[in-house]
Amino acid sequence: MRPPRSWSAETDVVVVGSGFAAFVAASIARGRGCGVVMLEADDEVGGMMRISSGEYWVPNNPQMRAAGIADPKEDCLRLMARLSYPSRYDPNSSTLGIPARTYRMFETYYDVASVATEELNEIGAMGSVFSDGVTPDAVFNPQGHIEYHSELPENKVEYGRAMMADTGGIHGPGQGQATVDLLYAHSQRAGIEVRTGHRVEQAFVNAAGEVVGVAASTALGTVTVRARKAVIFASGGFFHDEELRTQMLRGTVWGVTAPKTNTGVFLRIAQQLGAMTENIDSVWWGQMAVEEVRETHRSDSMAFWLYGDSMVLVNRHGVRVVNEKAHYNERGRIHTVYDATTKAYENTVLFQVYDDALAKNPEMGVKYPVPYPGQPWDLVISGDTWEELAEAIDERLAKLAGETGGLRLAPDFAANLAGTVARFNTFAESGHDEDFGRGTAPGERGYSVLGLTRGVNRTMYPFASTGPYHAILIGAAAFDTNGGPSINERAQVIDSNAEPIPGLYGAGNCVGSPGHGAYWSGGATLGNALVWAYQAGVYAAAEPVKEA
Amino acid sequence: MRPPRSWSAETDVVVVGSGFAAFVAASIARGRGCGVVMLEADDEVGGMMRISSGEYWVPNNPQMRAAGIADPKEDCLRLMARLSYPSRYDPNSSTLGIPARTYRMFETYYDVASVATEELNEIGAMGSVFSDGVTPDAVFNPQGHIEYHSELPENKVEYGRAMMADTGGIHGPGQGQATVDLLYAHSQRAGIEVRTGHRVEQAFVNAAGEVVGVAASTALGTVTVRARKAVIFASGGFFHDEELRTQMLRGTVWGVTAPKTNTGVFLRIAQQLGAMTENIDSVWWGQMAVEEVRETHRSDSMAFWLYGDSMVLVNRHGVRVVNEKAHYNERGRIHTVYDATTKAYENTVLFQVYDDALAKNPEMGVKYPVPYPGQPWDLVISGDTWEELAEAIDERLAKLAGETGGLRLAPDFAANLAGTVARFNTFAESGHDEDFGRGTAPGERGYSVLGLTRGVNRTMYPFASTGPYHAILIGAAAFDTNGGPSINERAQVIDSNAEPIPGLYGAGNCVGSPGHGAYWSGGATLGNALVWAYQAGVYAAAEPVKEA
Repeated sequence: MRPPRSWSAETDVVVVGSGFAAFVAASIARGRGCGVVMLEADDEVGGMMRISSGEYWVPNNPQMRAAGIADPKEDCLRLMARLSYPSRYDPNSSTLGIPARTYRMFETYYDVASVATEELNEIGAMGSVFSDGVTPDAVFNPQGHIEYHSELPENKVEYGRAMMADTGGIHGPGQGQATVDLLYAHSQRAGIEVRTGHRVEQAFVNAAGEVVGVAASTALGTVTVRARKAVIFASGGFFHDEELRTQMLRGTVWGVTAPKTNTGVFLRIAQQLGAMTENIDSVWWGQMAVEEVRETHRSDSMAFWLYGDSMVLVNRHGVRVVNEKAHYNERGRIHTVYDATTKAYENTVLFQVYDDALAKNPEMGVKYPVPYPGQPWDLVISGDTWEELAEAIDERLAKLAGETGGLRLAPDFAANLAGTVARFNTFAESGHDEDFGRGTAPGERGYSVLGLTRGVNRTMYPFASTGPYHAILIGAAAFDTNGGPSINERAQVIDSNAEPIPGLYGAGNCVGSPGHGAYWSGGATLGNALVWAYQAGVYAAAEPVKEA
Repeated sequence: MRPPRSWSAETDVVVVGSGFAAFVAASIARGRGCGVVMLEADDEVGGMMRISSGEYWVPNNPQMRAAGIADPKEDCLRLMARLSYPSRYDPNSSTLGIPARTYRMFETYYDVASVATEELNEIGAMGSVFSDGVTPDAVFNPQGHIEYHSELPENKVEYGRAMMADTGGIHGPGQGQATVDLLYAHSQRAGIEVRTGHRVEQAFVNAAGEVVGVAASTALGTVTVRARKAVIFASGGFFHDEELRTQMLRGTVWGVTAPKTNTGVFLRIAQQLGAMTENIDSVWWGQMAVEEVRETHRSDSMAFWLYGDSMVLVNRHGVRVVNEKAHYNERGRIHTVYDATTKAYENTVLFQVYDDALAKNPEMGVKYPVPYPGQPWDLVISGDTWEELAEAIDERLAKLAGETGGLRLAPDFAANLAGTVARFNTFAESGHDEDFGRGTAPGERGYSVLGLTRGVNRTMYPFASTGPYHAILIGAAAFDTNGGPSINERAQVIDSNAEPIPGLYGAGNCVGSPGHGAYWSGGATLGNALVWAYQAGVYAAAEPVKEA
């Protein structure tokens, strides 16, 4: 749309959104001398960062170097390539078997992430420290949790890449909000104008095809803001647009942690401006309790790791289909597997099944969706025997039939489940899961910090031989979508000839993640937000002033 | 790009491509009085239709009605919705649980397909007849093969929806070329100008934002063609652009039947013009022999149905992962399943394993990639025992390591394979595949027309107890990609607000298939080409003349 004759406001750089990427981009542009206005659709700032545990993945960061942890570039790029394109990865190729543009972006990520944390610290926006954690043996470790993929030969670093803001807090719930508080406070000190309740709906393009501002709807009408240099979108994904979600994603993704304002405004605007898109079928995967989110499609909770040792996740045939202790982003994808015989997504709903000893285990920590002992939650389905449990589950499924393509338990569920549990019990006794390797990788043990006191392999323990037994309906969920308009190394939005759309930048979950859906380790989501927001801030600040 | 000052040529409607969709659109527009120029990048006309078996899926078609086969609209829409959105389908919803825009397009498909065949017949372009075939009992049937999904309760029609051009030929190899010949002959009678060697690379847009022509590169330089009314793209998918293929598709898709000219020109052009895209992660799935296509990424052959009864398809652990007789589009997707424990696409390569009796079976017919007895093909790997076979397969895999992410056989392959075959043999004896239901659905038996004389369930027969045994490396393949710019009911390309881009139409595999990747039955690919090309021809012809 052509620019208006007069503007409601004018600045150098407009940043759309107020999550982590938005604040980083705004801080960097401001630090480099630009006037900055941030426009947030919601009534409060922070976006999804409000509920994040707040860590970002920064290879070869200053703290690692100070601690003597080597993280050479070529090794790190190998890991990223291996995880992002598992079937293309070729250690003998000059671009490791992945597309040249992607390879360059991985190089940029490695080069820039560390620099970004340093500049944010220097300008007083946000210091960074190691994101603390525990080792696979559950010993506190100030250098953080172990890398998610430490068992892969391509991963040469065990600890230290995960960082978090120096808030005085710890890695976990609350750290995201504390980071938002820190960045918001800096924005106010630095003179960044932060407007909430401004839902950006359009971008303005001048006669030269340059993006020169936006229009936002507010409670008091439409506001137009001129951006003399550039507009940076950091407005989150598209999950809460039901049609986009249905068209772009396969199977059913039941819920998301992203706020309701994440309706894909940037995808729509950027496509109208001629942007290329990528990774559009992808999300940052996880799992949620189907019944918690089936109506709202939103939760603050996520089954990062499925709780429990005497616990299995089974399909409608009562058969295990995945390593229950795999990382959330790896595990969540199992729900999208298509069955060639039934011509359906048979894993749309899976069943987290556990025994009564687990239900009554008093240990605290993140058990979601398993409730604490005595905490009532009607999504827990119980039965004294496998047969009774099966009947109760199937009754529940019947109620959901209109949302699942009519999914019901197979007649062999109870019998198979008994067999599945018997086989699992032998694995728990030996400590060796012959089917899915559960608990083998240090990365799995390092995050399954509950249930410490039982079992050879602490991720597995035999089920009690008698009931009651319990089950919860589990489905695919997302932190946010991570596909969208393509960006280049400078975080410029590009068209299908890889030419930048002048004046338009993107970062965070509103753009197509260069990692092709891979979760390089804890902090990969915010790490991408950090890197591309930093690039957007740097290059937006260096843009010439445009005619409006 | 703005229009040139002068044009090389001028017409009412420009059609890009010369496959089935292109000829249908051109014929319809010409039949309604328009001047039409077709621009084909290749040196010969026909696109992928040249190697097609030439059937198109037309619900409630005139021949069905004449034969008294009822195909009510509401039943047909239920089948389409069930197959396209298996986990969203809701028979009690007014739009069957699928997005409203998609529902309207399914209605359009049902309403228009039959009308399109009639108009093409009336204008002398192409008559349509039943696509002949055989029943599941291998008896010749003039009304065609059985519907692919006849076992689903939503499918109410067994025979008759599949039609083909009245060429005098039969459904099978050669029928696609015969159809091209028919349509090309009509184009010449009707005065449609067909230019080969014209690779369209750009579209021109006037000051009002309307598409008014294209530029094509030729051996003699660039040619510009003004389209007074509209431009219709029917230029095929994007498989042969390696970067697009790598970014958009998951895992490895080894080869395609689409011609080398299918490099996604329309995806690039339409995105620059602000088009929305959909179904972009999808292809019309199939399987090919990895070693045949690993260098060229192209083959005329496709493993429509995996040949043989004493045959299984196993993964690197020697375990079956799919119903080997499932339809190609259902079966091919198994290669893209992601393994949460190994963090890799473990099914990038699977192994079609069969015994020597099968290798020596003299029956003729489509066995690809299994060669006829005595026909040498070095992609067949053989061993006298399971251990020897395993060693030989693993040696072959080692050579491909740079293209597969280093995929090798697991140490348990040979032992597991022996067990897999033993279990399969019991299924073959009983006729009942307890793991994958092989050969249960009439649609599977109806297309596995070879190996008729053995076994209770003719899709299974016990393996010989002694070797030699044989194996072929099998990977995912595609007829063509089927994602791209979104179209509406009139085949107008739309932007992300569902507003048409004026003067721009699309049909065939260059657009996002409204079916969301589902293969409703044999002829679904050409059926979509027919319907949306017809709509494009009708509405392009009705467009006003535009300023250039």
